Amino acid sequence: MEIFTDIQEVKTANTKSPIHDLISERWSPRMFSSDAIGREEMRTMLEAARWAASSYNEQPWRFIYAFKGSRGYEKIYNCLVEFNQKWTRNAPVLMLTVVKENFESGKKNAHAMHDLGLAMGNFTLQAQSLGIALHHMAGFDGDKARDVFDIPEGFRPATVVAIGYYGGDASELPDDIEKSEYERRERLPIDDIASEGKWN
Amino acid sequence: MEIFTDIQEVKTANTKSPIHDLISERWSPRMFSSDAIGREEMRTMLEAARWAASSYNEQPWRFIYAFKGSRGYEKIYNCLVEFNQKWTRNAPVLMLTVVKENFESGKKNAHAMHDLGLAMGNFTLQAQSLGIALHHMAGFDGDKARDVFDIPEGFRPATVVAIGYYGGDASELPDDIEKSEYERRERLPIDDIASEGKWN
Repeated sequence: MEIFTDIQEVKTANTKSPIHDLISERWSPRMFSSDAIGREEMRTMLEAARWAASSYNEQPWRFIYAFKGSRGYEKIYNCLVEFNQKWTRNAPVLMLTVVKENFESGKKNAHAMHDLGLAMGNFTLQAQSLGIALHHMAGFDGDKARDVFDIPEGFRPATVVAIGYYGGDASELPDDIEKSEYERRERLPIDDIASEGKWN
Repeated sequence: MEIFTDIQEVKTANTKSPIHDLISERWSPRMFSSDAIGREEMRTMLEAARWAASSYNEQPWRFIYAFKGSRGYEKIYNCLVEFNQKWTRNAPVLMLTVVKENFESGKKNAHAMHDLGLAMGNFTLQAQSLGIALHHMAGFDGDKARDVFDIPEGFRPATVVAIGYYGGDASELPDDIEKSEYERRERLPIDDIASEGKWN
């Protein structure tokens, strides 16, 4: 689809230092191709996530995923805030991520969310290499997700991720959301986030 | 170095689903090649980190990095717990990661650590593609790091990362640490961390 190729070009990171294509070409769409995601692809992405580093190798990441049309999908969908419900119907997979809050020892794991992020970094890389896009969401009701899936104490819903192949037709999105699909990705300058030997 | 090649082989993830080499071959050494890391490579890895997704595009990640031999390096080194001081001297770069705790609006950002993890996921991928290894550490004194670098309220030291080219000689490490360099990486089975449509 020519229009989609144009969007990909707009979304590609413009960098002074050359970075890996799997990073520069990644973005977080709110539209997806109508191609289904299979159990095999899900397995591969989860396998990738699994090999991330974590504090004391605690692996504090848990995942509940569901395919469009299933009861599990509806359960996750119903936890999303209204804004996210406006576009997530296009995603062939929704996934709830959950963190294990404490170490096996019982002590609080202050790095659980960080380590989930590392695992989702691996998941993202693997997805991107397959042409699959993710959109992470903080906008959902964590308490509702806990209820709906009977998630025990000691675990905490962290994000919902929409997953699907890159593609789709932005013009089918609500107008305000459609617009964001054409916008350039913006980031803070490197010198605002990093410095040598001192706090900036 | 033949021995090092053998270690790389032991450390490579053994997976049923094929995953990207940049993930399967990554591990967290406590030894590094004596090759220096240049400012150019640091810039490239930070550039990669910068393009991660984040909640409301808040980009709550900050980095202080320092090269071996510099005053900044000693400052970071001195914040590490004793165990980590035993091996980090081999790393040509130490980096303190910091999260911005609140959104611009002032509201607490519950996903700051998660998003730092995503950024470090990108940093890791870029590093791995350059033959550079990372070792994340939670074992350091965050209050001391805050003091030493005058990190303001609203920001919180999160991790220290040792950075260097893969390589080095494990036999130069203290015995207990040397041993861990030869051990296989272990992870929970996929079915213990992920399930379809329900909490496992």
